Amino acid sequence: MSDDDHILLAHGGGGQLTAELIRQVILPALGPACRQEPTRLTDSAQVGLAGGPVVFTTDSYVVKPLEFPGGDIGKLAVCGTINDLAVAGAQPRAISLALVLEEGLEIELLRRVLVSAGRAAHDAGVTIATGDTKVVERGAADGMVINTAGVGTLLKGAEVGFDRIAPGDRIIITGPLGEHGMAVMSRREGLGISADLASDCAAIHELSAALVGELGPAVHFMRDPTRGGLAATLAELADAAGCDIEIAETAIPVNPTAQAVAEMLGLDLLAAANEGKLLAVIAPEAAERAVSVLAAFPLARRAAVIGQVTRRSDYPLVEMLTRAAGRRVVQMPYGEELPRIC
Amino acid sequence: MSDDDHILLAHGGGGQLTAELIRQVILPALGPACRQEPTRLTDSAQVGLAGGPVVFTTDSYVVKPLEFPGGDIGKLAVCGTINDLAVAGAQPRAISLALVLEEGLEIELLRRVLVSAGRAAHDAGVTIATGDTKVVERGAADGMVINTAGVGTLLKGAEVGFDRIAPGDRIIITGPLGEHGMAVMSRREGLGISADLASDCAAIHELSAALVGELGPAVHFMRDPTRGGLAATLAELADAAGCDIEIAETAIPVNPTAQAVAEMLGLDLLAAANEGKLLAVIAPEAAERAVSVLAAFPLARRAAVIGQVTRRSDYPLVEMLTRAAGRRVVQMPYGEELPRIC
Repeated sequence: MSDDDHILLAHGGGGQLTAELIRQVILPALGPACRQEPTRLTDSAQVGLAGGPVVFTTDSYVVKPLEFPGGDIGKLAVCGTINDLAVAGAQPRAISLALVLEEGLEIELLRRVLVSAGRAAHDAGVTIATGDTKVVERGAADGMVINTAGVGTLLKGAEVGFDRIAPGDRIIITGPLGEHGMAVMSRREGLGISADLASDCAAIHELSAALVGELGPAVHFMRDPTRGGLAATLAELADAAGCDIEIAETAIPVNPTAQAVAEMLGLDLLAAANEGKLLAVIAPEAAERAVSVLAAFPLARRAAVIGQVTRRSDYPLVEMLTRAAGRRVVQMPYGEELPRIC
Repeated sequence: MSDDDHILLAHGGGGQLTAELIRQVILPALGPACRQEPTRLTDSAQVGLAGGPVVFTTDSYVVKPLEFPGGDIGKLAVCGTINDLAVAGAQPRAISLALVLEEGLEIELLRRVLVSAGRAAHDAGVTIATGDTKVVERGAADGMVINTAGVGTLLKGAEVGFDRIAPGDRIIITGPLGEHGMAVMSRREGLGISADLASDCAAIHELSAALVGELGPAVHFMRDPTRGGLAATLAELADAAGCDIEIAETAIPVNPTAQAVAEMLGLDLLAAANEGKLLAVIAPEAAERAVSVLAAFPLARRAAVIGQVTRRSDYPLVEMLTRAAGRRVVQMPYGEELPRIC
């Protein structure tokens, strides 16, 4: 192991070595998504956000392993923050990228992760506007932690919020559940089925923009069901809206490999993380249209109505009509079924 | 040790325990800086940023120890991001707060840090608009890592940038150097002189706003000399502006305790981190006025002109006229003189 190939504590000192790491590794790897001149770095950036309210979000990523089928921590961080802006009804405009690196991290791995982050941002038309790099000693972080914050501008016609959810609204999901969670777990557990199962990690802002563009205020609420999966998202939604929700198991799109992995590991796909799915709550008269708008995108070709908001309730409940025609309560997961999943 | 008093991996699962941690510990501790309703949390927030360009910044904090004389990681993170916006000529408006917590962290320590963060934001009139909480297993982080990103709006009359620095410009610093670095190091090394030396950790946006408000475009450049200290800031500034810089050792305000600690540890105060100092580059005719504007604030009562930009140069150099009437080259620190200082 050569020192040149690995992160040193000294790379985090804010001196010459930090500058070299940024100029020689970080900025070139990020590529065109990063519009900073390669030799000039400031701690902040001006972003053009003329007109309309600004939406602001942040997420730290601690996924383990750092690379997994279908993505890596870099792509995950960029897409995750784009998606948080997207489901708030915003057009993502700029993101920040802050790295906490562990001493000894392979620089080649860092480079791969950043190339992937830069490509994800560029493909989505989002600028990586500002960043930060810290290094901690061996054992004080697990390879790396990435934080991305993001700013975007509210889309014209976007009126989404818990308070707009009403009985009768349809619940739409854009594809099969749990692929991210199961892909990461199968790699972590060494299940050796990587070829058949990849994370769904993707930016979904085109889906949300199309929905808002076509249906305007008929889009009542959007969310990306990440940590805690569909179960956590629906439980939160029911609680926040003060409404019962009913979904049909047979209506939920399934990836058979993800399903098999979940059964093998004793996990519930409903509570598994997704990183490229949109959950939308749509006014009943617009639901059919929403599905066809979404299904036009390859990312959402299996979009389906999976249930509806049924009634106002003081004790909001999410219920699932099972395949066997029974009823099951879908609960907010209690704690950490799948640690370090994002 | 009771489970109730410490962070569990399950606190990071995105389920009920995560929600409880946020509602019962995080939001109450952050206090009025955090305008979210205590029972309703979304992944993003709208921030009002009408008119003018938006400035965007991010920083992760890995300081060790988490609490030190004069501050803690929470106050440091909030002030650090406010300051990055301030030196860009912006009015800080909203920040995000993303926590990566290590399993086993005392919840009481988390609470203290968040109370401190919330107070710092509130005192500065800045909203904590959005956040994120992740938990990693024991040994995968050092207590906690905090990332704060921030957005602000450019102040009227602010025209700061490397390209505005010109020969003749005066270099002003608002007080003695290295107090943050030396306070953290003395606590870490157990020097037992905490009573005499505290970090200068503070929000400096009122200083920068007063300068811009009073002097407008005569303020050519501003920076907070954090990691790498004055040495790194001046070296970067000389390099970016393509100019030589000369400073006078006798003009630099000194804290004798910080000086003594630096000598004891064999460190250079010029390269030590500051967390509440403003370095300003000012047009020569406005320099005297700038000092008197700054000195009206308790935080900057020892503000002084410490040197000037001398000439354009192809090989820009920072030189210090020493107390002994010699000359010393002030270099960009190479690597990590003071690891985990912020």
